Amino acid sequence: MPTSSVDIQQLAVNTIRTLSMDAVQSANSGHPGTPMALAPVTYSLWTRHLRYDPAHPDWLARDRFVLSCGHASMLLYSVLHLAGVRNSQGQPAISLNDIRNFRQLHSPCAGHPEFGAAAGIETTTGPLGQGIANSVGMAVASKWLSARYEQNQNAVCGFNVYALCSDGDMMEGIGCEAASIAGHLKLDNLCWIYDDNQITIEGGTDLTFSENVQQRFKGLGWHVLTVDDANDLDAIDQAFESFKSIDDRPTLIILRSIIGYGAPNKQNTAAAHGSPLGEQEIVLAKEYYDWTFGKFEIPEGVYEHFQETLGRRGAEDFAAWQQVWNELKISDLGKYQDLSLILQRKLPTGWESWLPVFEPDSKGMATRVSSGKVLNAMADRIPWLVGGSADLAGSNKSLIEHKEAGDFDSDHFAGRNFHFGIREHSMAAICNGMSLTGLRAYAATFFVFTDYLRPAMRLSCLMHQPVLYILTHDSIGLGEDGPTHQPVEHLAACRAIPNLLVMRPADANEVSGCYKVALSQSTRPTALVLTRQDVPTMPVDAHRVADGVKHGAYVVHDGDQPQVILLGTGSELPICVAAAQHLERIGISVRVVSMPCWELFDEQSSEYRNAVLPPNIATRIAVEAGIAQGWEKYIGPSGRFIGMSSFGASAPFETLYEHFGITTDNIVSVAQQMLIERGQCDE
Amino acid sequence: MPTSSVDIQQLAVNTIRTLSMDAVQSANSGHPGTPMALAPVTYSLWTRHLRYDPAHPDWLARDRFVLSCGHASMLLYSVLHLAGVRNSQGQPAISLNDIRNFRQLHSPCAGHPEFGAAAGIETTTGPLGQGIANSVGMAVASKWLSARYEQNQNAVCGFNVYALCSDGDMMEGIGCEAASIAGHLKLDNLCWIYDDNQITIEGGTDLTFSENVQQRFKGLGWHVLTVDDANDLDAIDQAFESFKSIDDRPTLIILRSIIGYGAPNKQNTAAAHGSPLGEQEIVLAKEYYDWTFGKFEIPEGVYEHFQETLGRRGAEDFAAWQQVWNELKISDLGKYQDLSLILQRKLPTGWESWLPVFEPDSKGMATRVSSGKVLNAMADRIPWLVGGSADLAGSNKSLIEHKEAGDFDSDHFAGRNFHFGIREHSMAAICNGMSLTGLRAYAATFFVFTDYLRPAMRLSCLMHQPVLYILTHDSIGLGEDGPTHQPVEHLAACRAIPNLLVMRPADANEVSGCYKVALSQSTRPTALVLTRQDVPTMPVDAHRVADGVKHGAYVVHDGDQPQVILLGTGSELPICVAAAQHLERIGISVRVVSMPCWELFDEQSSEYRNAVLPPNIATRIAVEAGIAQGWEKYIGPSGRFIGMSSFGASAPFETLYEHFGITTDNIVSVAQQMLIERGQCDE
Repeated sequence: MPTSSVDIQQLAVNTIRTLSMDAVQSANSGHPGTPMALAPVTYSLWTRHLRYDPAHPDWLARDRFVLSCGHASMLLYSVLHLAGVRNSQGQPAISLNDIRNFRQLHSPCAGHPEFGAAAGIETTTGPLGQGIANSVGMAVASKWLSARYEQNQNAVCGFNVYALCSDGDMMEGIGCEAASIAGHLKLDNLCWIYDDNQITIEGGTDLTFSENVQQRFKGLGWHVLTVDDANDLDAIDQAFESFKSIDDRPTLIILRSIIGYGAPNKQNTAAAHGSPLGEQEIVLAKEYYDWTFGKFEIPEGVYEHFQETLGRRGAEDFAAWQQVWNELKISDLGKYQDLSLILQRKLPTGWESWLPVFEPDSKGMATRVSSGKVLNAMADRIPWLVGGSADLAGSNKSLIEHKEAGDFDSDHFAGRNFHFGIREHSMAAICNGMSLTGLRAYAATFFVFTDYLRPAMRLSCLMHQPVLYILTHDSIGLGEDGPTHQPVEHLAACRAIPNLLVMRPADANEVSGCYKVALSQSTRPTALVLTRQDVPTMPVDAHRVADGVKHGAYVVHDGDQPQVILLGTGSELPICVAAAQHLERIGISVRVVSMPCWELFDEQSSEYRNAVLPPNIATRIAVEAGIAQGWEKYIGPSGRFIGMSSFGASAPFETLYEHFGITTDNIVSVAQQMLIERGQCDE
Repeated sequence: MPTSSVDIQQLAVNTIRTLSMDAVQSANSGHPGTPMALAPVTYSLWTRHLRYDPAHPDWLARDRFVLSCGHASMLLYSVLHLAGVRNSQGQPAISLNDIRNFRQLHSPCAGHPEFGAAAGIETTTGPLGQGIANSVGMAVASKWLSARYEQNQNAVCGFNVYALCSDGDMMEGIGCEAASIAGHLKLDNLCWIYDDNQITIEGGTDLTFSENVQQRFKGLGWHVLTVDDANDLDAIDQAFESFKSIDDRPTLIILRSIIGYGAPNKQNTAAAHGSPLGEQEIVLAKEYYDWTFGKFEIPEGVYEHFQETLGRRGAEDFAAWQQVWNELKISDLGKYQDLSLILQRKLPTGWESWLPVFEPDSKGMATRVSSGKVLNAMADRIPWLVGGSADLAGSNKSLIEHKEAGDFDSDHFAGRNFHFGIREHSMAAICNGMSLTGLRAYAATFFVFTDYLRPAMRLSCLMHQPVLYILTHDSIGLGEDGPTHQPVEHLAACRAIPNLLVMRPADANEVSGCYKVALSQSTRPTALVLTRQDVPTMPVDAHRVADGVKHGAYVVHDGDQPQVILLGTGSELPICVAAAQHLERIGISVRVVSMPCWELFDEQSSEYRNAVLPPNIATRIAVEAGIAQGWEKYIGPSGRFIGMSSFGASAPFETLYEHFGITTDNIVSVAQQMLIERGQCDE
């Protein structure tokens, strides 16, 4: 048993290392080198600095720990285990058995940390740069909550966010975007620890990365510190103290480390990165650590040490916070209730009743415009519906226009309009971080630029975060900006992502219905795909529209015993309706189905689906100003598709619809031809 | 007519401005403010510095001009017109009539510059950050060509690359990645001019962007200059001279400009960015310029001035280069022939005959491994097949292993192995720039990380550049790394992009066939999707395999009068073959179709397609470890799909295939069930 406080500290550090090494070896898969290198800084942070109660890992005001270098997942699992983090049933979030089952099916100890797999995992990481960008969103959320609900006092909602990051986080573009925003916003509650190990997978960082990180971050407005030895607990301590003393900038700690520290033949090489060390090398490393214990063994005193440091401090901090929290209930019940709803991921009662209803109007308005109106109506009722655009707010109609909404900036953290700059990728990842903290975050840009933010959007889906993506200028209908700006494949590409609702409303009331669906979601994000150009508001009862949207597809126009079904979405639905009217004038009966959301339609009963798309009507034409991919499922092998099969072009939008044949005349002609081929119509 | 040299210079500058303003106004759409601001620097560059012959815009050694802020497209069209750039038929690349038809269908003057629309447009720009990253690829290509073919003398292949860029280019992550690589590589032939106008669409840059750009770029290893007044032609001149004098770093010129310069009510505001100025404001701006000419009028002397400066200098430079070029033919015919092939986008004769053939092998090898072998065989025959990975070369098997291949770095620009660092997005955009210069560039990463480089991959497709994407770890088959690293939707997402060949080979000979197809392409990129895990090499004649791959799909196993068709790709094909064997043992005759490339199959005649997938065999099962989207097209409404419908999980890959039901047993069971339902089989 350790005899001095220094002994127990070193023992705890080495326990993190050996648990990580043993788990990777046992799985015969994983990344041992970084946990070995970063065990000291993680130990220091958790035992001495983190404001965290292992018994209440969902405490609003806990400091957040983000492992942006997610491949080092065993570092997180080891510390969550040793810290005794408990789930809501009071059981260990990560048991020793879970660690023994590292990287096995159903173990919460997945290859990379998965949000939701265990309490204490604050976000899913692995794709590089995402974690640090999430950390900016969490720091932002703390600032916003504190500004709105406690005049920036930080007693109820204030917390710090710490992120461990790697060379990859420094190199990925999203990391630079996130750092630039954090510096601009002067997020003094944000601390990144950069694991400067000078090793990448292909070799030394000098192969590809010779920038002066310190100078770059100073240019970005950060407070930059260096710690020359990742094993120097005192220097690490001082760096964290320096972070906590700074109140006008985020902090970057550049920590010079040795990957695989202690493994005599593999340390300081890429070989320590992504493969088990091997039994023999583990023996040698343990010798180096003076480790006399068994595999997966936790030496006596280590659990207790975490309990006496982190555990005791965390319990005290939590108790103190509870008192402030209870005082808030008395002093300002409204704010208390709002915060309670935020913590429960709920919305204020009755929000749906404020959804706008739009009158039929043959001119109508662009769906981006009706989206702006609905967004504003909802923002009036849901104070924590906050977000913004990547420098296209005016075009996206994503501004909250209420005169008290204000801009979110370092002088006014209560502002609800975020300005993300021309940084789509970090915008989405920051929204993920805000959402993980409980805010209803939205991100807006042109639909084509979902390509720029796709990795973060995928993580919204994987983490089940109900982020709202407001995506305008949704087709060739944007006109003159041309093919670089015209989404053609993006509906298919977004529909491909599991757990994403892709909604393309056809008029203002469908937009309202889409918001109803999107805001009702608690476990999946929504991509709202909106036109630049005007579309008529259909003369269909608004409640029927909302109900139809909720079911993903519904009949908007029906002939007597229809021979043809036209399926459309968004701005192509009115073209289908016009074609139906034309066909009916020449004696062909037509049903028009609006299909704003495939995913919802697929979830309906077969009765509902067959009622909307009766199997006996095989003459079907889908019309959408995107590619055909996936429509085969609804139109069948004898169906036809009218849309795009190439990139677009630069011209006024009416010209483009003509040029690409997405017209009423073309639909009429194709329908007639199909019926003639089937002998259901005279030539 | 101008009476002094200063007069004519100012007149030329103002002609660029007024052409741009008039064209945007006439189209009633576009971006006038930046051309007005950047006319002087563009004028200075083209008339005084650019090594460019308007009569030979495809000259290998021309300096490249990249308009990364592509929305300012009229700036480029104006200067191409005034400079008298000619196409290969000797006609004006951009006529005045083309400019009058700015943003109209079939005009080469599209909303954003489109590569291929007119001579002189070096790359497609508009999506921010892409152009500057392309410029790095062009600068890299010059260095590589010069190092390989002329011992770095730069007489034959040396050129400078100039890129105009905007706040958006500075903010987008890809821009920071590209800047970091360029600094690391010490690309002294690269000059970016940053239009520091302090205005973004949502307002002043101080809303979102307060970093010290100068300090950041110094940290990235750049030579940084500032010019305080974008109208100061002398200061601009000096900055370009300073760039040309520096030989160990790229140069950034920070140019303080006024957006919409000269428009009294709109200059220096976001209103000058993306909308026509309006007739009245144009009148006032022209008054400010002392402009006394008509709409679209080119004052006397302006064409001549461009001819006397750029034209004369360019013709002399080109003539001098032709002499060096002819001398090369005499001194080193082999190098001359290589460069001629590069200029013609051709490969060395007979390269196909060196494609490896693999023997049948029930153990086989991962397709990433066979890809590495084929890549190396081809690299031996095609010296300008160059590329690399975003720090995963060992995993991607993308290294050229020949002992003389070497690493591309600032001490050895002839190296063929590129190290892009953990920067997927700029890797792809740099490969676009290399490809535009004539190199056969390849980019490698994990398949899931195509999400990180998608905007650049889309531009490979839009620009018809035959970039090769080597994408390994292509499914849940990567195992323990878990869902963050497991592509599920990525086949669908890539297949959605127009003009991209998505190829997923099933064994080593299919890999060889895929390389044959990919390298034969001259107008489209290929995404080669490869396994981490071993797959058997099928006992099918290698020539038949290559022929089958070329047709996109072919029969690899056939029963007598087959009742069932199994369609598979990649690692799922052997599972289909095993299932077929099992089914045949119980008396069910099965055809197995390998379908490595949908796009190629769709291009075949209906006879071929019907021969592979006979319409009368409706019992079809597609098997692919991705989502179903799009398979409906091949399996029809009564077909079944065995694959993924959710994200993956972290576990050994065999466990995952079992867990998600992608197994021989499941295929057998589904096939039996389908036949029973159709009364074609006993229960």
